[in-house]
Amino acid sequence: MNPLLLEDILRNALKEDIGRGDVTSEAIMPKGLMAEAQIISRSPGVLAGQQAAAAAFRLLDPQVRWRPLLDDGAKLMPGQILANLRGRARALLAGERVALNLLQRLSGIATATAQAVRAVEGMGLTVVDTRKTTPGLRMLEKEAVRAGGGRNHRHGLDDAVLIKDNHLRLAGGPAKAVALARRAVGPLVKIEVEAETLEEVSQALEAGADVIMLDNMTLDLTLEAVKMVNGRALVEASGNLKPEDLPDLARAGVDFASLGWLTHSAPPLDLSLEMMVCDDGKDKP
Amino acid sequence: MNPLLLEDILRNALKEDIGRGDVTSEAIMPKGLMAEAQIISRSPGVLAGQQAAAAAFRLLDPQVRWRPLLDDGAKLMPGQILANLRGRARALLAGERVALNLLQRLSGIATATAQAVRAVEGMGLTVVDTRKTTPGLRMLEKEAVRAGGGRNHRHGLDDAVLIKDNHLRLAGGPAKAVALARRAVGPLVKIEVEAETLEEVSQALEAGADVIMLDNMTLDLTLEAVKMVNGRALVEASGNLKPEDLPDLARAGVDFASLGWLTHSAPPLDLSLEMMVCDDGKDKP
Amino acid sequence: MNPLLLEDILRNALKEDIGRGDVTSEAIMPKGLMAEAQIISRSPGVLAGQQAAAAAFRLLDPQVRWRPLLDDGAKLMPGQILANLRGRARALLAGERVALNLLQRLSGIATATAQAVRAVEGMGLTVVDTRKTTPGLRMLEKEAVRAGGGRNHRHGLDDAVLIKDNHLRLAGGPAKAVALARRAVGPLVKIEVEAETLEEVSQALEAGADVIMLDNMTLDLTLEAVKMVNGRALVEASGNLKPEDLPDLARAGVDFASLGWLTHSAPPLDLSLEMMVCDDGKDKP
Amino acid sequence: MNPLLLEDILRNALKEDIGRGDVTSEAIMPKGLMAEAQIISRSPGVLAGQQAAAAAFRLLDPQVRWRPLLDDGAKLMPGQILANLRGRARALLAGERVALNLLQRLSGIATATAQAVRAVEGMGLTVVDTRKTTPGLRMLEKEAVRAGGGRNHRHGLDDAVLIKDNHLRLAGGPAKAVALARRAVGPLVKIEVEAETLEEVSQALEAGADVIMLDNMTLDLTLEAVKMVNGRALVEASGNLKPEDLPDLARAGVDFASLGWLTHSAPPLDLSLEMMVCDDGKDKP
Amino acid sequence: MNPLLLEDILRNALKEDIGRGDVTSEAIMPKGLMAEAQIISRSPGVLAGQQAAAAAFRLLDPQVRWRPLLDDGAKLMPGQILANLRGRARALLAGERVALNLLQRLSGIATATAQAVRAVEGMGLTVVDTRKTTPGLRMLEKEAVRAGGGRNHRHGLDDAVLIKDNHLRLAGGPAKAVALARRAVGPLVKIEVEAETLEEVSQALEAGADVIMLDNMTLDLTLEAVKMVNGRALVEASGNLKPEDLPDLARAGVDFASLGWLTHSAPPLDLSLEMMVCDDGKDKP
Amino acid sequence: MNPLLLEDILRNALKEDIGRGDVTSEAIMPKGLMAEAQIISRSPGVLAGQQAAAAAFRLLDPQVRWRPLLDDGAKLMPGQILANLRGRARALLAGERVALNLLQRLSGIATATAQAVRAVEGMGLTVVDTRKTTPGLRMLEKEAVRAGGGRNHRHGLDDAVLIKDNHLRLAGGPAKAVALARRAVGPLVKIEVEAETLEEVSQALEAGADVIMLDNMTLDLTLEAVKMVNGRALVEASGNLKPEDLPDLARAGVDFASLGWLTHSAPPLDLSLEMMVCDDGKDKP
Repeated sequence: MNPLLLEDILRNALKEDIGRGDVTSEAIMPKGLMAEAQIISRSPGVLAGQQAAAAAFRLLDPQVRWRPLLDDGAKLMPGQILANLRGRARALLAGERVALNLLQRLSGIATATAQAVRAVEGMGLTVVDTRKTTPGLRMLEKEAVRAGGGRNHRHGLDDAVLIKDNHLRLAGGPAKAVALARRAVGPLVKIEVEAETLEEVSQALEAGADVIMLDNMTLDLTLEAVKMVNGRALVEASGNLKPEDLPDLARAGVDFASLGWLTHSAPPLDLSLEMMVCDDGKDKP
Repeated sequence: MNPLLLEDILRNALKEDIGRGDVTSEAIMPKGLMAEAQIISRSPGVLAGQQAAAAAFRLLDPQVRWRPLLDDGAKLMPGQILANLRGRARALLAGERVALNLLQRLSGIATATAQAVRAVEGMGLTVVDTRKTTPGLRMLEKEAVRAGGGRNHRHGLDDAVLIKDNHLRLAGGPAKAVALARRAVGPLVKIEVEAETLEEVSQALEAGADVIMLDNMTLDLTLEAVKMVNGRALVEASGNLKPEDLPDLARAGVDFASLGWLTHSAPPLDLSLEMMVCDDGKDKP
Repeated sequence: MNPLLLEDILRNALKEDIGRGDVTSEAIMPKGLMAEAQIISRSPGVLAGQQAAAAAFRLLDPQVRWRPLLDDGAKLMPGQILANLRGRARALLAGERVALNLLQRLSGIATATAQAVRAVEGMGLTVVDTRKTTPGLRMLEKEAVRAGGGRNHRHGLDDAVLIKDNHLRLAGGPAKAVALARRAVGPLVKIEVEAETLEEVSQALEAGADVIMLDNMTLDLTLEAVKMVNGRALVEASGNLKPEDLPDLARAGVDFASLGWLTHSAPPLDLSLEMMVCDDGKDKP
Repeated sequence: MNPLLLEDILRNALKEDIGRGDVTSEAIMPKGLMAEAQIISRSPGVLAGQQAAAAAFRLLDPQVRWRPLLDDGAKLMPGQILANLRGRARALLAGERVALNLLQRLSGIATATAQAVRAVEGMGLTVVDTRKTTPGLRMLEKEAVRAGGGRNHRHGLDDAVLIKDNHLRLAGGPAKAVALARRAVGPLVKIEVEAETLEEVSQALEAGADVIMLDNMTLDLTLEAVKMVNGRALVEASGNLKPEDLPDLARAGVDFASLGWLTHSAPPLDLSLEMMVCDDGKDKP
Repeated sequence: MNPLLLEDILRNALKEDIGRGDVTSEAIMPKGLMAEAQIISRSPGVLAGQQAAAAAFRLLDPQVRWRPLLDDGAKLMPGQILANLRGRARALLAGERVALNLLQRLSGIATATAQAVRAVEGMGLTVVDTRKTTPGLRMLEKEAVRAGGGRNHRHGLDDAVLIKDNHLRLAGGPAKAVALARRAVGPLVKIEVEAETLEEVSQALEAGADVIMLDNMTLDLTLEAVKMVNGRALVEASGNLKPEDLPDLARAGVDFASLGWLTHSAPPLDLSLEMMVCDDGKDKP
Repeated sequence: MNPLLLEDILRNALKEDIGRGDVTSEAIMPKGLMAEAQIISRSPGVLAGQQAAAAAFRLLDPQVRWRPLLDDGAKLMPGQILANLRGRARALLAGERVALNLLQRLSGIATATAQAVRAVEGMGLTVVDTRKTTPGLRMLEKEAVRAGGGRNHRHGLDDAVLIKDNHLRLAGGPAKAVALARRAVGPLVKIEVEAETLEEVSQALEAGADVIMLDNMTLDLTLEAVKMVNGRALVEASGNLKPEDLPDLARAGVDFASLGWLTHSAPPLDLSLEMMVCDDGKDKP
């Protein structure tokens, strides 16, 4: 994770939420009043997003201390405290919503990913994400997938070639498309081709694809495709997959499966922040 | 919606997705190749986010034309085309993912909101959102709520006073907190106070709150609270509400109910973009 | 005040003033030379803008220490020292102009506001500002108004509805305009309507406006308008008002008066920064 | 004027004023409603800032047309129309305040400058500004000074050397300071030295200053200083000057006089924007 | 190439060069004066950077027309005109330096790359760049390498794994390092390992590296390394290579060679811009 | 040097290089592992760019300590260590490339400048740079020129008037052009005119230019031009100059010579960064 991009994301999010200022806290809380807070899980799940949440508070006030009790990727039980916070009450109140919105969303993604990974534990199938992420939060969401035990597919349009149906239709088939791509990209870039039929799998193989994506194929077709490829390329399964679809794919010999569901539909994890005035109520830096 | 903030959001999202460039399309698609595309709904729902989606393409290439067949807020049937696009194939391919990610998320929110609004149609209860939105996308998500027939709660910490449990605990009760707030804010700002018990409702009323938020109250308590308030303040119900909880609240006489569910848990609407080369395949500006 | 927006404002201002570098100080001052400075008032007034001024120096060099002798809102006498500074001479010299320009302008606004507030002390009239602020500095100028004892009208076009003459002309009268606004905004947003005649006051009242702005009305008309409204809405007086106009408005029973004069015409307070080399002239961090 | 910096200034100003959106106009005005508007002067003065005002509207909607009836620098009479506008009503309403705030401030500066210039017409004294400008608006304010017939002193700390009292105190006198500066800067940079006494004028001359600033000198001292310099350097008069102080300085032979008053205290020019629906009320692009 | 990143690069460059405004042209050139210009090569080479150069002018004035006579990658002869320009004289003069600085640098890189590519034409060795590019211009410089016939190595630290000497030293050898990397990255990411000895080549192979970089190896060692690898991984040669070193490496069977020289030391191509007033000297849009 | 602009440059450069994250180091290096590093020169030269290099690491991790062993402008011998670094291994590895790319380029420029300056040591000719710098890095490159003993010509189009051939052609000769410029700019701005013939030198002199640039003149013409000017203006020589051309120009009496070569063609200095794990491998803040 690039800390400078993280800072940009958080500055945007905090400006969006705080706007011209937190009128409630500025009116009610004395400027120097110190407070402590706990972040508590309300449901079971897998933790992710702590670096972002901690940075949200620190951007508002460098004196805020975030003490994690767990690392990203840890399992959470209902009622479990995941981190303690100490700082000026105004800063804790101003950063609370952004920090929680991020932690809940990212822990939700990690939790969903862990569920998918568990479904094929020991079966040799890798679970990966897609580009169906929240605009503006991809770096964080892809890290949450890793926290949940998954891996990442492409981070963007620039870090691998993926020739999809629209490309194939416009370019005139996989042979021509792969050849053009091979001529354009450097030796460190893999080329993946989407295939909807066995015919297309065969063409993609001939064209020299490094990876073949079986798009929305039935399990029977998937089995035949894997046989046809026979190790000459990596095989990816894709298309509205859910965790329960994965064991069959693993048994079929697919190398990895990509699930947009991990990022666009994972339910947020329920977390809350409880605050209390410090013993003395004063700033002891 | 502020068009300059919209542009910022989209520039961030497009840079995130395209990175250093769309290596696939740049390798495969001739620079001037023109294409057409349709955005098609795969499931029933309510449309939102067209302005953002259209702007995503236009930022990449001002020549791309987006022709809407429906307005935001319209009902979508499976298979329905919601917009036609024409432009350079490279621009359509580079903008596709960001446009779809936004349209799917925002239409999902509009669809969920419409469901909540329908549940209390004609019953006098207003459905509103919360600040539990996606960091960076609040302006768009709040507009999607409006497209679905809902209204907006606060846009941020700066456009109304909301005195919550953490404030009350730190400030020493509603009387003091409301008095401090009243002294600080201008005459156009409303003051809302959260209450968990009837005692707190009564205190908030005495303190002169404009709005009282009943936080996680049972239906019985809610009924008593509404009676106690008796029109002297607006009454909001809040706390993990779902559409099915709303009719009872409406019957209890609550003025409006806020649902974080609208924005943090609405399932995305399934949409796709189908592309084809133009008859002539050439740029006719 | 949002500290992240404050930082943006100051970064812009410092880049504008310093450009590619402070050629004079870089040529003449040894890099590590330490200096002390005092900010001194040259005329009587009310202090505002210290947070911004201190932040300007700190952005250039986090080691600069700003020790305030007075809080914002305090009265200043000619010759009074309001803050002491210590840091590298180069940083003090590079930040001086931006810090003084802000302090002088903001203290000028606080001074003008205090004058207006004093004119109606104990008379029950609230003094508020307008959107006639300096482009780019509104958050700071609105805070200076508060430091001077005033309150804030809208912060922007997004935090309350204000239906003005141009809206009324284009929309077809207050009844229709207020109805449309009421249907669009959430329950925390107040609706204000501008009125130039008693007829319009009556229409605005009927339409259910929360606030009625009497625009450029004579004192006689104002008196009648207040009587007509009779507590059913807040009443604002507006239109090229100066402090000397306020007592009559207070006696007429107006709730609040808005003065563009506070921000667009307040004379700057005369301040200066006096610098001296530290005893030892060396950096003792 | 750098059009890219102008765009940055205006984007900031428009985001500040519009925030999350113009709730009033979005609720009341139909999206496509077209309107026309006139910008009218309410008092006599000199026009400046049209490029900025026009750009404010254009950034919100590229279709808005601004037709100037006068150029910057032109004299304005009360009631005079300075420009006509045509565009979507929502864009005109959203841009109105920023455009007027800029036009009024900048025309106020041009008007004040013209007054100062007129005071010494034909007397050979050049009127210049200072760095006492509004943080964030210097480029525009310095252009307004030029529109009023004045010239610009330094644009920032980077485009000339100006050795002031604080520098002299820290660096040990003008001889050393000028020598250090001369060694550091390139051959296109002028070096100016501030002097408060004739002794200091003499030292600055010996040191080889290109320009000598007489800081807060009496008229008698100024006369002697000009005699002492005798054309070997340019002579600037400075220190809380007002237009009425200039004729004496001109007669004393000073080359140019700098007035912070032009930018920090010029009263804004009173302007208004009157809007009307177009004949047909529809968009005819 | 991402057009939004290109725009950012150019806005930065133009603001850097133009600063507060082009004082010379604004003083001398009438605002509407139209001019034409030609970009002419003064030496032989390969063209690159036209998209950037054209965009520089267009950002200053959307009316400027850039008519290319050649495509990027074309050979240039001394005296050859590569593009014609038409637009306002002020815009052409303000954009000239940035456009030329970019074109000269990028064409220099394309020219150097073409020289390297020619040295091994038909020999099966791919010429690639490195991350030794100009900070801020990498996207453009990597495209210039492609225009010259080369390919790109990694675009940044995020789009492939490259385990270098410092990593190996800190991590404890290639076996452990590759295993850790394989566990962390997704199936589309290649892993490259740097090797300075045959021992290290053997370890990297065993560890399962996709690519092995022979760092500063002698030709003899290179030959043995290629034999040892025997097609089980791609082999890259690296280490202060110049075009004249490439034929031997090609004959040795290396797959690709990376040259920092292409981007950090390519001499700029000598180009000039000649301007003339249009026949009529007026703006005919 | 403006530290806020420096920060912008480095943030851009680091985002460009690190992208979504340093996948290699994040996979291989434990998060808290501490390392030390040395920056070592591989060839003789003059050091520049340390402030930028140190800031690159500090932006990634404020805990990184950069201890310089030499100042900018110092002579470097092959094998010489110029700075020691200590910090988290991940931060050192993530910042390495940007820091080295800058240090190598800037030290290369300082080295080239020192060579030019040495060529005319004691001969009274000042060596200056041009605007032929790397887009985005001008502030740094101009400082490197100063570190090498040179001076700076204009920093941009805004800090002096330079009337070049294209201006003269479009404006109708030096007399008119200088008069227009003199009327537009303030008293601190110098006016330079380019001349290609003695006729033009004479015209520029008459027109009152402060500086005359002899563009691509032969040595004979240069001698005559200097005689003609005879101290009434500064004389600059320009036009593809190299260090070896300078002594003749010095002897001809030229005041200063500008060399684009310093910034567009200086070979980078060869530097490397050697890293080692700290004794204990742990973070001791």
